[in-house]
Amino acid sequence: MDARRYAALPDPFPMWRGGVLRGARIAYETWGTLNARRDNAVLIFTGLSPSAHAASSAANPADGWWQGMIGPGLAIDSARFFVICVNSLGSPFGSTSPASDDPATGQPYRLAFPDLSVEDIARSGHETVRSLGITRLDTVMGPSLGGMVVLAFVAMFPGAARRMLCISGTAAAAPFAIALRSIQREAITNDPAWRKGEYSADAPPVMGQRLARKLGTVTYRSAAEWQERFGRAPIRADMKRHDPFASEFAVQGYLESLARRFVSAFDANCYLYLSRSMDRFELSAHGDPVELMRGARLQQALVIGVQTDLLFTITEQQALANMLASAGVPTRFAPLPCIEGHDAFLVDIKTFGGEIAPFLNAT
Amino acid sequence: MDARRYAALPDPFPMWRGGVLRGARIAYETWGTLNARRDNAVLIFTGLSPSAHAASSAANPADGWWQGMIGPGLAIDSARFFVICVNSLGSPFGSTSPASDDPATGQPYRLAFPDLSVEDIARSGHETVRSLGITRLDTVMGPSLGGMVVLAFVAMFPGAARRMLCISGTAAAAPFAIALRSIQREAITNDPAWRKGEYSADAPPVMGQRLARKLGTVTYRSAAEWQERFGRAPIRADMKRHDPFASEFAVQGYLESLARRFVSAFDANCYLYLSRSMDRFELSAHGDPVELMRGARLQQALVIGVQTDLLFTITEQQALANMLASAGVPTRFAPLPCIEGHDAFLVDIKTFGGEIAPFLNAT
Repeated sequence: MDARRYAALPDPFPMWRGGVLRGARIAYETWGTLNARRDNAVLIFTGLSPSAHAASSAANPADGWWQGMIGPGLAIDSARFFVICVNSLGSPFGSTSPASDDPATGQPYRLAFPDLSVEDIARSGHETVRSLGITRLDTVMGPSLGGMVVLAFVAMFPGAARRMLCISGTAAAAPFAIALRSIQREAITNDPAWRKGEYSADAPPVMGQRLARKLGTVTYRSAAEWQERFGRAPIRADMKRHDPFASEFAVQGYLESLARRFVSAFDANCYLYLSRSMDRFELSAHGDPVELMRGARLQQALVIGVQTDLLFTITEQQALANMLASAGVPTRFAPLPCIEGHDAFLVDIKTFGGEIAPFLNAT
Repeated sequence: MDARRYAALPDPFPMWRGGVLRGARIAYETWGTLNARRDNAVLIFTGLSPSAHAASSAANPADGWWQGMIGPGLAIDSARFFVICVNSLGSPFGSTSPASDDPATGQPYRLAFPDLSVEDIARSGHETVRSLGITRLDTVMGPSLGGMVVLAFVAMFPGAARRMLCISGTAAAAPFAIALRSIQREAITNDPAWRKGEYSADAPPVMGQRLARKLGTVTYRSAAEWQERFGRAPIRADMKRHDPFASEFAVQGYLESLARRFVSAFDANCYLYLSRSMDRFELSAHGDPVELMRGARLQQALVIGVQTDLLFTITEQQALANMLASAGVPTRFAPLPCIEGHDAFLVDIKTFGGEIAPFLNAT
């Protein structure tokens, strides 16, 4: 079962930091119906790792990464809105990425893929929307990397969205987040199996990827949550590895099982490209942020942050909301007290829905 | 220049989780003079990585890891106290460790070293003090791992210290800290050069060690400090590596240079043993913590924590102070607002000294 559709990008598709893609495409899924005025579309950009499958649908009834958030009568109400979720350019779930074949060679791009920027993800999402005949979105939204893409989107395409919803994003990555992400990338590039990106499909750099994902997972959650959830419970016997220096506690088994699941699904080079794009993004490269937001022709904005977020701190969320308010955009700031850290938007559907629904449903 | 002296441990020296060491020793340094009543001694246990060289002395004028904190007229006043700092059992700076020769084979112990516990570090420190003819310390103190050792020390040796000073320690590691440390260990054990601990002295697992130390460094500091200190400044040209996915920002150069310095000084197997001992420590293995503290015959305690500490959270510090107070120990709790995170005790000598000096100098 596959609900994906594909939008062809302009050919050639120019990349923000140079280079072009030929014959590139974006995978996306939709929920609900575009109305006759074509003014009820909501575009969702994802975090670093999800696919376009944000929620179940007739074409693909499997749970999506934001299951419970999108659907008829839910916070992102598909009975009212035409909801589009794009798989980011550079991600391996159907969109053109370092794992795709380069039409010039018939071989996977790997490191020959041009530099990937948050701006490229924004532009490819914009082209996808245009290919559907939509000239102005009701709302553009996204969490984490998606929140960064949303900021690039409204800066680059003034008037392309009436409203903006940024969840745990940032206008420029903080050095702490850069440090944590660059260590993850180094875990992958240190793995001899990475082979400067030339690993074969059946021998990817799994040790490095597992390590990277474990660290990623730690940074997405919080100490308070894990104290409550795992405490010092011992590891389940079937998760214990024969390694004298690991795997004694339940929390280690949890990291291991998440990491294994991720490694089997996500291409290592794609991870490196997407991760680096987050470090490099700077909204101010487009001009003065307040002027950019003033020029974006937004009618409303909602900025959601989480108080326990280590990676995109609540201070950064407050700064984003202040910037939007300074630009004259009517902005609500929601600093949520969830204990799940950066990932709270994936877990605490009720609290996030309680902010998202009234924003989207306001007339 | 070397100020180290050595205390022979009882032979055999029984280890907490089984096994014994033969002919083991502890390296230590001292400042000041033991008085005639032998009641002015302060014992310092260190964090995971430092040596016994906590401060300069005539025998070794190089700066120590707690330079500015220990000396005549300083917060830990060597004009008044006889200050002893021990290199932890299991650490490679002079004390017996996995890098030492096993007298049974004439070869380095490596993974044949018995399981190392916080309790073994406490006992070996206690033996060191006894070898100096001291039966009761004025104060036992330590930061980080040293804070855990201090708790084990007072529980295991009631009456052996009159006062206790615990800095950013814990009675049992939190799952978040366990996760972050176990990822560091996995970075080392994943490195093919580790060779199950059988690396040669000229080919240690430097890639894994560098990665582990970088992650360690991140967990020892805070997002707020790095925002102030590095922001998004670019990396210095001489620190840039020829790696397409790393090293664009100053914070990455900082991590790289610290990691290189550490790797050249610290044995990988010692790191694994010491790191694991922190995960495993549970004060409650010795009995009810409140009863243990009641039985420790402490006249006073000071618990210092840092509000930005990710690894040993301020919540844990508050719980420690509460436990001591419940046991009837007159306890001061100092939740410091430093922005340097867990490492603040190494950096903010003024603020820490401002708590330590009045505690030690009270009569």
